[in-house]
Amino acid sequence: MRHPEPDLPAPRRTTREWQAADAAHFLHPFTDHQALASRGVRVITRGEGIYVWDSEGHRILDAMSGLWCVNVGYGQPALVEAAARQMTQLPYYNAFFQTTTPVAVALAEKLAALAPEGFQHVFFTNSGSEANDTNLRLVRRYWDLLGQPERRVVISRENAYHGSTLAAASLGGMPDMHAQGGLPIPGIVHVGQPHQWAHRDGAARGLDADAFGRLAAQWLEDKILALGPKTVAAFIAEPVQGAGGVIVPPASYWPEVQRICDRYDILLISDEVICGFGRTGRWWGCETVGSRPDLMTFAKGVTSGYVPLGGVMVGERVARVLIERGGEFEHGFTYSGHPVACAVALANLALIEELDLVRRVREDTGPWLAERLATLRDHPLVGDVQSCGLMAAVQLAREPRTGAAFDPAHAVGMACRRHCFDGGLVMRAVGDRMIVAPPLVITRAEIDEMVGLVRQALDRTLEEARAAGWV
Amino acid sequence: MRHPEPDLPAPRRTTREWQAADAAHFLHPFTDHQALASRGVRVITRGEGIYVWDSEGHRILDAMSGLWCVNVGYGQPALVEAAARQMTQLPYYNAFFQTTTPVAVALAEKLAALAPEGFQHVFFTNSGSEANDTNLRLVRRYWDLLGQPERRVVISRENAYHGSTLAAASLGGMPDMHAQGGLPIPGIVHVGQPHQWAHRDGAARGLDADAFGRLAAQWLEDKILALGPKTVAAFIAEPVQGAGGVIVPPASYWPEVQRICDRYDILLISDEVICGFGRTGRWWGCETVGSRPDLMTFAKGVTSGYVPLGGVMVGERVARVLIERGGEFEHGFTYSGHPVACAVALANLALIEELDLVRRVREDTGPWLAERLATLRDHPLVGDVQSCGLMAAVQLAREPRTGAAFDPAHAVGMACRRHCFDGGLVMRAVGDRMIVAPPLVITRAEIDEMVGLVRQALDRTLEEARAAGWV
Repeated sequence: MRHPEPDLPAPRRTTREWQAADAAHFLHPFTDHQALASRGVRVITRGEGIYVWDSEGHRILDAMSGLWCVNVGYGQPALVEAAARQMTQLPYYNAFFQTTTPVAVALAEKLAALAPEGFQHVFFTNSGSEANDTNLRLVRRYWDLLGQPERRVVISRENAYHGSTLAAASLGGMPDMHAQGGLPIPGIVHVGQPHQWAHRDGAARGLDADAFGRLAAQWLEDKILALGPKTVAAFIAEPVQGAGGVIVPPASYWPEVQRICDRYDILLISDEVICGFGRTGRWWGCETVGSRPDLMTFAKGVTSGYVPLGGVMVGERVARVLIERGGEFEHGFTYSGHPVACAVALANLALIEELDLVRRVREDTGPWLAERLATLRDHPLVGDVQSCGLMAAVQLAREPRTGAAFDPAHAVGMACRRHCFDGGLVMRAVGDRMIVAPPLVITRAEIDEMVGLVRQALDRTLEEARAAGWV
Repeated sequence: MRHPEPDLPAPRRTTREWQAADAAHFLHPFTDHQALASRGVRVITRGEGIYVWDSEGHRILDAMSGLWCVNVGYGQPALVEAAARQMTQLPYYNAFFQTTTPVAVALAEKLAALAPEGFQHVFFTNSGSEANDTNLRLVRRYWDLLGQPERRVVISRENAYHGSTLAAASLGGMPDMHAQGGLPIPGIVHVGQPHQWAHRDGAARGLDADAFGRLAAQWLEDKILALGPKTVAAFIAEPVQGAGGVIVPPASYWPEVQRICDRYDILLISDEVICGFGRTGRWWGCETVGSRPDLMTFAKGVTSGYVPLGGVMVGERVARVLIERGGEFEHGFTYSGHPVACAVALANLALIEELDLVRRVREDTGPWLAERLATLRDHPLVGDVQSCGLMAAVQLAREPRTGAAFDPAHAVGMACRRHCFDGGLVMRAVGDRMIVAPPLVITRAEIDEMVGLVRQALDRTLEEARAAGWV
């Protein structure tokens, strides 16, 4: 399917010209620049609904919502109008000088209304990275103000992703990120993740999901006891791990984690950057898994990515101490409460409500996705399938029956991602785990189309694997 | 001057209602929330040119450009149109998946064209904080790749501001920020700032500006030698310190700093978040002070604050190593190269060029501001006046002749700021140093108005100081 080249705000050029200019000037995030330049970047020029188009006119089903963010899909005029109206009236003002803007107040109020009970206050940032960076400051400040400055350690999980500032990447548990730039910073430790498939030949051997969930929670308690409970400030986790590979924890995991945090009086930070705003079929992922966090990180879905915005929902346990005993909190960003970002967020949240997307994910499209993905279990490359609302993973395996993995050197996941792209589908590869998180506006028919494209990419990957002798 | 309440994207409310909602939900940056709630926040509702309006209809001359960012002033339709056009066509796409967008490429290309020679590559972030956080990763990665991993320390300056992530605040030298949350992180040290007034009773006693500038540069060399030159990765500094109080260094300072960085092969990071995009009368502050940085941090003025955007201009010395030897750089943000932010930046840079703002600041409005501010030197509260382009400081003193300072407990700067606000002027107080950085579109007549309002605020501050017995 080909479309005419859209009207660009930049000069019209051929794909090759864009690729050359890109290679000459744009250092991409998480990219091997030399390899990308030699291959030639793909130029995305337009979006509509759940689809994007490239500069060659190919239509691509965006099963990753941009990067877990375009919850209402591309081309929603209500968000454009909100941005233009606010930008015309007041494109920016700061919240430092004992000043505020109506739109930032209205968004804080709206978020408090949408949040679980006990969340009344919002600290705004530009991104999830800055929000988790803020969380580290917040939890340490909280314990300092309570006269327990020895509570400094934050526990996170291996393979977790919590952003890319030095502090946020340290909170994360990505070995490749920690290998550059001297991470993690002191005072952050990691425990195992509740990823039964990854532990199938080790800790999870012979355990059912329930028993493994309790074991993974026990790793947290063991770490707390080893560190000394009075030295631990907080535990941070996504309800369902996203960038780590859509790791849906066993049902027994979160109740145990909550019990452990309660028992040792440890703050719980729920990173809702991916799970928030309907992704799991509730407004917040913690509602789906049944945890009761003290702080919630948000970003991405709050604006559907139309304008950068992030922040922290500060629960009353922390907020009261900060407000009543803290004096000035020496932290913030120029664009904390940016009027245009807040206006777009308000329009986005209103649209999510108007389209009833959260209930649709929970009762309609989420279950439908699970059902359709289950049909892939018979595929000779598929070892496991997991989903929660509209985020899901398809685990590739060399021998699905035994769970035997591919040789990592063959990079089968990346091969599969290439076949997806070539077939008109964006799917992400986390090692050999293929993941999707489509816009929440996706319909049943579009889910059918998406899963059909996934099967087609799996078939082509299988052909390549067989031809190369990987299976 | 009163205006009707504008059409708000949020429900119409009285000022008191906005204040109550603000206090209930919005945790402001760098704010004592309890004190603000008891006083009642000021609600800014509209902007036009160099003016903003509050919910009571007061017109306020915004001499701080929002927060050093609204370089083209409020209400510029070209920026709104660029945002709406891009948001309609493609509100977001990522640059992770070997994909790019034309507008991000076009902005990277434009920035490279505007930058001093030797800058060809851009790494995009959401903010100056994230950009300086990125710089810390970049300089350490650079030396690792060159086989000198022991070069890890970054030297900054006391009272410097480089952002508010844990790493950026550590790069900064603000004691109040370091007092919360366990800052600075390891590997960052600070030297004295080239602030002659602050050192007038100490190191600068008896020195002329030239000699003091060389002394302040010597502090850097002394620190390098004390640490061991082979352990130092980089030196970071603003060309003219902004949030630290608009500290214009003596002309002798930067040439010496450049010589020292060259001598010990230390990377120079020029933080251009405030100085960039015309503020000092050149596109970049380093051009005004004559330094030759390896990395430049940018944010704020790149979009005039209409949409959040930041980044790092990566000079070829660093870029070549990163690209040719680095493989994947394990760092980045969801919104690195955000299409809407990039579209607004392109429109903003085009407008700066169309209005010839950089030359106007250098040849017309900058010198005019300096001339008008000089007329305040006779005021009984004014100890010193400094300016560079369209950023300036008025140093308050109890005895201008001797330079004797006010008792910090009297918070004379904050008193002056209140008188400014009451008189319809936003001016910032850094201790007892009053600073301005108006939109670059300000005219001579508006500068006259602004300086008139400054004098009026000084007069009222003097009255208050006399009545209170502070002078």
